[in-house]
Amino acid sequence: MNIPFNKPYKTGKELEYIQKSIESGKIAGDGIYTKKCHEFFENRYGFKKCLLTTSCTDALELAAILIGIEAGDEVIMPSYTFVSTANAFVLRGASIVFADSRPDHPGIDEDCIEPLITPKTKAIVVVHYAGVSCDMEKIAKLADKYSLFIIEDAAQAIDSYYIGKNNVKTPLGSIGHLAAFSFHETKNIISGEGGMLVINDERFSKRAEIIREKGTNRSAFFRGEVNKYGWVDIGSSFLPSDIIAAFLFAQLENIDKIQERRQHIWNLYKTELRELQDAGLIKLPFVPSYSTNNYHMFYLLFDNIQSRDLVIKKLKEQGILSVFHYLSLHKSFFYLNSAQSINSELTNSDFYTDCLLRLPFYVELNDDQVSKICSVIKAVLYDAKLNKLVVS
Amino acid sequence: MNIPFNKPYKTGKELEYIQKSIESGKIAGDGIYTKKCHEFFENRYGFKKCLLTTSCTDALELAAILIGIEAGDEVIMPSYTFVSTANAFVLRGASIVFADSRPDHPGIDEDCIEPLITPKTKAIVVVHYAGVSCDMEKIAKLADKYSLFIIEDAAQAIDSYYIGKNNVKTPLGSIGHLAAFSFHETKNIISGEGGMLVINDERFSKRAEIIREKGTNRSAFFRGEVNKYGWVDIGSSFLPSDIIAAFLFAQLENIDKIQERRQHIWNLYKTELRELQDAGLIKLPFVPSYSTNNYHMFYLLFDNIQSRDLVIKKLKEQGILSVFHYLSLHKSFFYLNSAQSINSELTNSDFYTDCLLRLPFYVELNDDQVSKICSVIKAVLYDAKLNKLVVS
Repeated sequence: MNIPFNKPYKTGKELEYIQKSIESGKIAGDGIYTKKCHEFFENRYGFKKCLLTTSCTDALELAAILIGIEAGDEVIMPSYTFVSTANAFVLRGASIVFADSRPDHPGIDEDCIEPLITPKTKAIVVVHYAGVSCDMEKIAKLADKYSLFIIEDAAQAIDSYYIGKNNVKTPLGSIGHLAAFSFHETKNIISGEGGMLVINDERFSKRAEIIREKGTNRSAFFRGEVNKYGWVDIGSSFLPSDIIAAFLFAQLENIDKIQERRQHIWNLYKTELRELQDAGLIKLPFVPSYSTNNYHMFYLLFDNIQSRDLVIKKLKEQGILSVFHYLSLHKSFFYLNSAQSINSELTNSDFYTDCLLRLPFYVELNDDQVSKICSVIKAVLYDAKLNKLVVS
Repeated sequence: MNIPFNKPYKTGKELEYIQKSIESGKIAGDGIYTKKCHEFFENRYGFKKCLLTTSCTDALELAAILIGIEAGDEVIMPSYTFVSTANAFVLRGASIVFADSRPDHPGIDEDCIEPLITPKTKAIVVVHYAGVSCDMEKIAKLADKYSLFIIEDAAQAIDSYYIGKNNVKTPLGSIGHLAAFSFHETKNIISGEGGMLVINDERFSKRAEIIREKGTNRSAFFRGEVNKYGWVDIGSSFLPSDIIAAFLFAQLENIDKIQERRQHIWNLYKTELRELQDAGLIKLPFVPSYSTNNYHMFYLLFDNIQSRDLVIKKLKEQGILSVFHYLSLHKSFFYLNSAQSINSELTNSDFYTDCLLRLPFYVELNDDQVSKICSVIKAVLYDAKLNKLVVS
């Protein structure tokens, strides 16, 4: 593949910091770089408490335990999301109630949520797709009205903001009771696999530490609050090696540089492809007025699956890897065969499953490569239009 | 601290391999080094199928899901173990039934197990404490008789063997239906945090891949067995970053060198401290005839907690960190306050909780440091004996 879909970016400091972590004598969890990462997030975004985890999946699982999910509880989330958004709650016994996506954006359609709320509903999980915020004022009103927890699946949403009244920008991940981030290699800031739980509701702070430390009060012990530590709760080993944190910290230090390059690539794609939108052949990503863009992803929307798959195929012939994204979870084998299945029609979710295409996006993607990708897409679509193929 | 309890060992190749992992274009899970690690274990120990995980805890959780633990199932394990041995099964709803340790060794007393088996018992979890095998023939007979699963908690047991009839050596981790290893920084072979599930019963192979990949059939997709992948099962993100695997592989390549040095340190401790055992002041570790020693740990057994704590204190005054180990889980806050609590007396387990002391143990510990540690211990115990303190 001449142009891969993704390429992990190295800032140049990662190996040096891993070396320092080893020299510190502690490369297990909660070493010096884990603490540096926690401080970075708490300082830059005002997150109340941060805990690195081995993945965003694990952060969501920790969230599900913290809000006390039990068999029979219902959790509302979009169907167009990664499987872990749902599985983290299914593992604790929840029934998942899927909502449709917005017509203008793959995020949850905020206006679809209220009819899905029942006395069993415990939480709304919003997914800030492509780093674009959900309408958090609408969500917050619903959560208040029905006393629900808000969990932000902020896997893709680092360095993005909700824009509220008077143009006040609030960092994504700081709004819900809890929020989960991902540092998977495909994200803006990476550590291969990796994640973080943000605890904005202080009621959860102490228990989060315990559950993350295998159900022991080890953290309190090291702070001198108890004189020995033992088994006090359920829990798992959610904390990553400090090697991972060392890698991550090198990335975080360079977040502005990384974001600047990503912004440039995103704008270049948009400039080059706008004519296809003007010609009615595709739609470009929509960023609502209540959200910033963190340049996580550049995607196109086609009218139908045939056009999308034609573009995937033609790009591949040129050595360029473009990919579709989620398969709607409400249509999955697991959900359709589970007792909890609700056989609903979610047309927007199905649309994004079939018609969304993600283009290569990584820091080292150069301008010529972006132009090359765009010219292949243009050639395919104009040619298809000329020959009255399936494009529209 | 002049002599820490543990010091992570670096072979010198770790950073080079992490660099290569980055250059490969894939640092998320199941990259090139993850595959190398799997092959290493499958080739060296004949393990049927290996899957790296983010921790031994996670490997145990994967095992609990695989054997289908449900609410009401009972699982038998030693009380003298790490909290994750129990929590992994508690998370799936199991009731834990704790067995006592052997009088001569902290491992589970195989003769205590049968009376604990009920129609609800689903598995026996053996813990190969300090890398010393449990009596696996006895365990296997029980498992056969009552159709139980055997899970080996082989967290400490890398490169150790059960010695059976005709002196046949079988690698620990290859005997149970499933086995879990740890690469925590305190182990012989490390990656900071890290673990591995070994699947010896092939019935579990395919589902293990799925559960480890967030409940998706992604692995089968990449092998071309299915034409798209989706949500087919419960699951989590158990797979570690390839950065972790790259670090681990550098260690594995040097396992013989590492083990050689650890053997030397272990034997040096034993030679230097034998006189204290001969004088009846302590007991040295016992390795039964049916087990090899993998030199994971050097521990001492005192007659009482006061003697042990005196030695800890005196060593600390000399800048040497020695540590006690597990607190018996059957006496934990969580277990005593859970509905499943069985108020049993486990005297050997309590004994190891109070009277076991672990001495500093790591590759870079030099001979002079071992001698220094031993001379401090000798001075304390002879002095205490002279002054008729609590040593015996």
